[in-house]
Amino acid sequence: MGSVLIKHGTLVTATDTFAADLFIDAGRIAWIGMRPDANCPEADTVIDATGKYVLPGGIDVHTHLDMPLRGDLRSVDDFETGTIAAACGGTTTIIDYAAHSHGESMEQGFETWRQKAEGKAVIDYGFHMTLSEFTDQTLHGMERMVEQGVSSFKVFTAYPGRMMIDDAAILKVLKQAKKLGALVCVHAENGHIIDVLVEEALHAGQIAPQYHALTRPSIGEGEATHRVITLAEIAGAPLYVVHISCCEAIQEIAAAKQRGLPVYGETCPQYLLLSVDCYYLPPEFEGAKYVMSPPLRERPHQECLWQAIQTGVVDTIGTDHCPFHFRGQKELGRQDFTKIPNGGPGIETRMSLLYTGGVETGRITLNRFVDLTATGPAKLFGLYPQKGTIVPGSDADLAIIDPSIATIISAMTHNSHVDYSLYEGMRVKGMPEYVFLRGELIVREGKFVGKSGSGRFLKRPPVSR
Amino acid sequence: MGSVLIKHGTLVTATDTFAADLFIDAGRIAWIGMRPDANCPEADTVIDATGKYVLPGGIDVHTHLDMPLRGDLRSVDDFETGTIAAACGGTTTIIDYAAHSHGESMEQGFETWRQKAEGKAVIDYGFHMTLSEFTDQTLHGMERMVEQGVSSFKVFTAYPGRMMIDDAAILKVLKQAKKLGALVCVHAENGHIIDVLVEEALHAGQIAPQYHALTRPSIGEGEATHRVITLAEIAGAPLYVVHISCCEAIQEIAAAKQRGLPVYGETCPQYLLLSVDCYYLPPEFEGAKYVMSPPLRERPHQECLWQAIQTGVVDTIGTDHCPFHFRGQKELGRQDFTKIPNGGPGIETRMSLLYTGGVETGRITLNRFVDLTATGPAKLFGLYPQKGTIVPGSDADLAIIDPSIATIISAMTHNSHVDYSLYEGMRVKGMPEYVFLRGELIVREGKFVGKSGSGRFLKRPPVSR
Amino acid sequence: MGSVLIKHGTLVTATDTFAADLFIDAGRIAWIGMRPDANCPEADTVIDATGKYVLPGGIDVHTHLDMPLRGDLRSVDDFETGTIAAACGGTTTIIDYAAHSHGESMEQGFETWRQKAEGKAVIDYGFHMTLSEFTDQTLHGMERMVEQGVSSFKVFTAYPGRMMIDDAAILKVLKQAKKLGALVCVHAENGHIIDVLVEEALHAGQIAPQYHALTRPSIGEGEATHRVITLAEIAGAPLYVVHISCCEAIQEIAAAKQRGLPVYGETCPQYLLLSVDCYYLPPEFEGAKYVMSPPLRERPHQECLWQAIQTGVVDTIGTDHCPFHFRGQKELGRQDFTKIPNGGPGIETRMSLLYTGGVETGRITLNRFVDLTATGPAKLFGLYPQKGTIVPGSDADLAIIDPSIATIISAMTHNSHVDYSLYEGMRVKGMPEYVFLRGELIVREGKFVGKSGSGRFLKRPPVSR
Amino acid sequence: MGSVLIKHGTLVTATDTFAADLFIDAGRIAWIGMRPDANCPEADTVIDATGKYVLPGGIDVHTHLDMPLRGDLRSVDDFETGTIAAACGGTTTIIDYAAHSHGESMEQGFETWRQKAEGKAVIDYGFHMTLSEFTDQTLHGMERMVEQGVSSFKVFTAYPGRMMIDDAAILKVLKQAKKLGALVCVHAENGHIIDVLVEEALHAGQIAPQYHALTRPSIGEGEATHRVITLAEIAGAPLYVVHISCCEAIQEIAAAKQRGLPVYGETCPQYLLLSVDCYYLPPEFEGAKYVMSPPLRERPHQECLWQAIQTGVVDTIGTDHCPFHFRGQKELGRQDFTKIPNGGPGIETRMSLLYTGGVETGRITLNRFVDLTATGPAKLFGLYPQKGTIVPGSDADLAIIDPSIATIISAMTHNSHVDYSLYEGMRVKGMPEYVFLRGELIVREGKFVGKSGSGRFLKRPPVSR
Repeated sequence: MGSVLIKHGTLVTATDTFAADLFIDAGRIAWIGMRPDANCPEADTVIDATGKYVLPGGIDVHTHLDMPLRGDLRSVDDFETGTIAAACGGTTTIIDYAAHSHGESMEQGFETWRQKAEGKAVIDYGFHMTLSEFTDQTLHGMERMVEQGVSSFKVFTAYPGRMMIDDAAILKVLKQAKKLGALVCVHAENGHIIDVLVEEALHAGQIAPQYHALTRPSIGEGEATHRVITLAEIAGAPLYVVHISCCEAIQEIAAAKQRGLPVYGETCPQYLLLSVDCYYLPPEFEGAKYVMSPPLRERPHQECLWQAIQTGVVDTIGTDHCPFHFRGQKELGRQDFTKIPNGGPGIETRMSLLYTGGVETGRITLNRFVDLTATGPAKLFGLYPQKGTIVPGSDADLAIIDPSIATIISAMTHNSHVDYSLYEGMRVKGMPEYVFLRGELIVREGKFVGKSGSGRFLKRPPVSR
Repeated sequence: MGSVLIKHGTLVTATDTFAADLFIDAGRIAWIGMRPDANCPEADTVIDATGKYVLPGGIDVHTHLDMPLRGDLRSVDDFETGTIAAACGGTTTIIDYAAHSHGESMEQGFETWRQKAEGKAVIDYGFHMTLSEFTDQTLHGMERMVEQGVSSFKVFTAYPGRMMIDDAAILKVLKQAKKLGALVCVHAENGHIIDVLVEEALHAGQIAPQYHALTRPSIGEGEATHRVITLAEIAGAPLYVVHISCCEAIQEIAAAKQRGLPVYGETCPQYLLLSVDCYYLPPEFEGAKYVMSPPLRERPHQECLWQAIQTGVVDTIGTDHCPFHFRGQKELGRQDFTKIPNGGPGIETRMSLLYTGGVETGRITLNRFVDLTATGPAKLFGLYPQKGTIVPGSDADLAIIDPSIATIISAMTHNSHVDYSLYEGMRVKGMPEYVFLRGELIVREGKFVGKSGSGRFLKRPPVSR
Repeated sequence: MGSVLIKHGTLVTATDTFAADLFIDAGRIAWIGMRPDANCPEADTVIDATGKYVLPGGIDVHTHLDMPLRGDLRSVDDFETGTIAAACGGTTTIIDYAAHSHGESMEQGFETWRQKAEGKAVIDYGFHMTLSEFTDQTLHGMERMVEQGVSSFKVFTAYPGRMMIDDAAILKVLKQAKKLGALVCVHAENGHIIDVLVEEALHAGQIAPQYHALTRPSIGEGEATHRVITLAEIAGAPLYVVHISCCEAIQEIAAAKQRGLPVYGETCPQYLLLSVDCYYLPPEFEGAKYVMSPPLRERPHQECLWQAIQTGVVDTIGTDHCPFHFRGQKELGRQDFTKIPNGGPGIETRMSLLYTGGVETGRITLNRFVDLTATGPAKLFGLYPQKGTIVPGSDADLAIIDPSIATIISAMTHNSHVDYSLYEGMRVKGMPEYVFLRGELIVREGKFVGKSGSGRFLKRPPVSR
Repeated sequence: MGSVLIKHGTLVTATDTFAADLFIDAGRIAWIGMRPDANCPEADTVIDATGKYVLPGGIDVHTHLDMPLRGDLRSVDDFETGTIAAACGGTTTIIDYAAHSHGESMEQGFETWRQKAEGKAVIDYGFHMTLSEFTDQTLHGMERMVEQGVSSFKVFTAYPGRMMIDDAAILKVLKQAKKLGALVCVHAENGHIIDVLVEEALHAGQIAPQYHALTRPSIGEGEATHRVITLAEIAGAPLYVVHISCCEAIQEIAAAKQRGLPVYGETCPQYLLLSVDCYYLPPEFEGAKYVMSPPLRERPHQECLWQAIQTGVVDTIGTDHCPFHFRGQKELGRQDFTKIPNGGPGIETRMSLLYTGGVETGRITLNRFVDLTATGPAKLFGLYPQKGTIVPGSDADLAIIDPSIATIISAMTHNSHVDYSLYEGMRVKGMPEYVFLRGELIVREGKFVGKSGSGRFLKRPPVSR
């Protein structure tokens, strides 16, 4: 593996923005600064980054690649197409939600997911383990997972009878996580409320996509968030709330932080940029593309989320990337919105959407952008300082963006396998020109130039908080 | 039934305090004021109330008389001893929590409770119906109950597997209550949290009474309160939170009220006057007397509750009267605090404790006292204007108290059947000298002088809010 | 003075609504209820109130009758036209803001105001004293005023150099009020902010009426409210905030109440029903009619105020009645909005507007209406129980309204002297059919039938809180 | 100026902690990382930092060196002794509060302060300009100051008649600052409240040091903070609140930040570590040492401040270093606490106290320590990226601390000229072993080894926010 010199760029960390050259050796950042002496040797490869930003490669901690949903339905990006899409969007690490089937051990689930990724992933990856049942084996299984480098777990307050575990189980999981130094991620919507409202809607013949949103009220998300924060407080455990979509949940996270609790929040670009209006887009059933959980919300929620990003209430930007084709998959719900597979694509556009909606508009600084997309996730999930920043010794995972270049998002040109985009035709900045993974160039001029399977599994240690 | 003239008293309503004579005819208040003319006829009975307060008879909307607990355990006051105790404390109406066994219809439960009361109760009474399971029959049963004059229902977020119904069921009950004009009462503690902590405590050999409190944290009460308020908001239904014991729950009620939601709060004298310290009183196991749910809390919670009373966050004072003998009953839990029957006496001391702790100390006015103990409960539970105030046409349910007279509370002298008092030796004011039920004198000079079975069942209509 | 019997009416207090006859003797309420005996004598006058509400006469604690503004400008209702207008609107008591000129003693100011009222007022009246300067005499003057029955004082945080006294002076006034049992009323807007913005506006040539609103931001009202609450907290004194117009001030009052502070709020019908849009009404300069301070606000503030009324954050409804003719007076500001005399009429429409906007819409009960318009003001300002309620012994100040009758508001028919109405053409209910002042009929079928000068000065004692 | 290589240290920025060598050339950081090649030249000086932290030199933005108080009283550290003390504490930049006398121009004040510093200061320095009067010249003077590199200004809501300017003036200053890109710093205590309470105290013969605290209530600090935030919101200007001492002020800052306002907070080590108890320390008058404004508060305020540091409500740690000798200066107030010169020393102990109380206890990370003491101040006050971080191109201002070494604070050994310490005998960590200013070693093994006058004036440009 040769050395690389990135010259004349503007380097950006979560704190600093500065002009400097950056030297990569053996896949790691070797030094940053002015070349010590004219006589010192140059690198094997030299990249001129004049006028460009050199950023830490992005970390997307919320993906669902190659995920089985029900029957033979599964999300349409596998670890190859999904991570190529990620790379082309500037993301060099993902943490995907592994799961184990009911009755199966966590080890089996973990092994299944490793096999999905191995030989396919083109960027580095870790796993969370999803706990969709609570059994005698759960607490022991968590311990085994942490030993394997899976130091975060997901629980649901939604989907009673399928994914939800009850408050007692969540409390036990939180207590175990506290003991293990692991982090519990929660999908916080009150599933009971949703079930009652869905039943009423279907009974009333309300079958169109918009009823997906109307049966998942934001105060139910606020309620579940409040409840799980209470459980975490009792356990003395940290908590990570995924895909926050609404003001009510933000208020709960903000209040918890003000009280000094280690509660962290994630939102996603779709909640920042899209609204419930999408469910009413023509032609009929077009709204199905936007069916995901939580649903898109009324516009004022967007302002809450942006403000939460600005004030530090939101810590990370994930994607919940879980794409299903419109044709043949989303369409299963034409006669019943509950049959629409939940989820949408996002892995490729995360960085550029936040750059465009956040940095370009002046809502956030470039440093905060780096914090939200890379440093914050790395620190929370045990990847730091190997990943998530630009300092000597760290993996040379870098995205170089040219702030003068705009791109049009389109399903015709994107790298994801899915047959539509949530942002078709949108003009964005912030798509990377070059991407390095551990010093290897994997994206050049926006095109993937890496090799399948070059991504590595990341064992993530417990984090002391 | 003869006429009665109460002369020279100071009459008190929730708003007004004024000197006037009061004339009772046919069990109702006929007129208030100065006797129109010297020639007009006087009453059959004349009471001189000079220097005394004439108050609306108290309404205790939270009692558990003759209540089966488990096995052959039942609360030790039946409708005779319990209502005599109530009457001697100035209370002329109760609403008791009827229940139906799992599998039994609500009508059967209602009939059982009517039989418990009939021929025994010495004051008027209504029933709430307790919903400790949710079945295909529940919504229909609620409709039948409202037809019978049982227009309020109780649900639990505590006691999973025994009394708790899940959030979906609570939401359905709230929606049905909304439709029927009924009021849902909730015992709001997170039962899952409690079960996990109790299991841990017992596993650690922590068997003494104080662990009852330590395993029921106040933030779990706050959580459940927040959650059920959310459910009520979704249903568009009013909500009544019983026996609030802590700051966290108060904050939730206050926030709901500020948002304009029809959410009401009840607390009880024990939460205002006693604290968690009671669980540590000598001799060993003395603390068992104070085992009730929610438990007594740390002292600062008392201040929250008093302030909530002053600021209108708390609407009513109930008792949760549910007495068990210390000997033979509480003692069942000597080796395991979870075996201590939960509950304590309160029906007889409610008015005097609030008078002493509230009015005498200047925390509340006499008008607010009347509102909390009589008018507020009457309006919330469909008894107004028949009960709860002093206006022409209302039932002549009255308590006359002499503010100069103090009484010592003691199990040796109280009218309840139970073998101890939570306030043994406490000096109080506000015990009534005379009590009238529909114009009949039932307490004279503090002694019960009425007849068993003279109390009547009150059909309570739906209330529009 | 003869006796009066009001038969078959529905009597309403701040707590109770009930059917009863009401007997008046010697100007006071003698008894309420059913006539004791067929043989007892009837009254000299009998009124049939079948189907009608018998309410306590209204109390308007915020009026400016015959008030000098500057030069020879004075408000156009004197104590005769103003109190006739009040009476016809159902108000039987006012508390007017007396003032003393700079350099003049409070006694002189008080004497001036007594002379304005004497022989003219047709309803009973008291005075607040306005403190628009703070001198060596101020604290002593307050003591003298309380002796004279003027137990409330007004201070301004607005109008620096004219009416404003600084925070040190306000704090001293509050401390003295605390000592005397008096109540301090505050006009809470930050006058410094306004002066800076006005100067900027005029400098920019912004002279039209709407700039009155644009130079008095609501957050400046919130700020001043917060500040004076702090001063009152330090003094340990109660505080009454007049004419609250906005959410920000409401939030401060609500927060203070939640903390248990004796802080009270008043709003006025114009802030509940009119908005900043009025300043833009055609034709040009029409907006001048609505120029008052604080100004009318954006519509969302109305919802805050209604909610504050519902939740008890607002205690009273006043009017700030201070009318100036449009012709010749308001018109002085055609070239400069700061020259428009501030103020508008309201004394005649207060009760009907609140009845129509509050009771008819279901926002508040009739009991709450009575509390806001009569009982609350009476208790706060030392008039209770002589005024403000319907109990034996109280002054027979009553308004009888027929809820089936609607009226159209118009300057052509109103009793105030002013040449326009803020509500021209609005259809309202709640205008009284009969009004009694101390047992004398002063309004019959909506027309004034009383005598000039029959109103009496009310000495208001200190109130313990 | 020779080159320096700091080897084997642990470098710390506001985000990152990493092992790397650091190379200094021409006073600036040249590169960071591993030496590129064994053949590349080494530095003139090599420091081994094995086991040590290499931190950005501290920035203390709140000092009062050589400050005239009244008469011939002036703070006892001039720019020589004060900056030597600062340097020995790890601080390499200060921003001192320059002032102009009433009637004098800002330029004159600025010139006076430059002369105080020139030839004396041993570290770099900038100035804020204090605005203790508001005249026709003020807004123009601000413009001139920004041209001179004085891009921040201070106003007072305390000290009416001496330092306070009224709300109108503050609003105008804020508007001008907005226009100029300058930052307004405010000393937020309500001076009127203090004056009234001081007058009462002295009148009651309360002359001892503790009355200094008792006459400056924390809610008055909260009030002023709330008020000036309102003014800043109206101006659309950023605001920096100095020396926050209490919960009430913290709540206001937190609320402002949650609403997205650019409001920043500073606290000082004395408010974090000392309490009002100090005023009662024996022997008599010992408390005078702690007389500063705001005063030390009750202990619970410390917890609010620490939490505000953890949650990002507080942005910087300053010192308000303003030392007066106990002998002869503080003693002037033996008979009257208002005669005690306000202020105390702090410049030397800032970094070690925060390190000890914050980092050592686990309350904050080392990165947050760097942010609070260097990066945050640099960014807010226009010094970044020249100062405040460790990146190539920045001034080589560095403090190297050995975390294993503890020091005892004592007036006998400290470098400040003042005759006492607030922390006499306290054991701290975090005192620097080496300090570099622009690549020059100025502290070696804790001793000052630099030259008087080597500090440079820093022109601070406007900052876009």
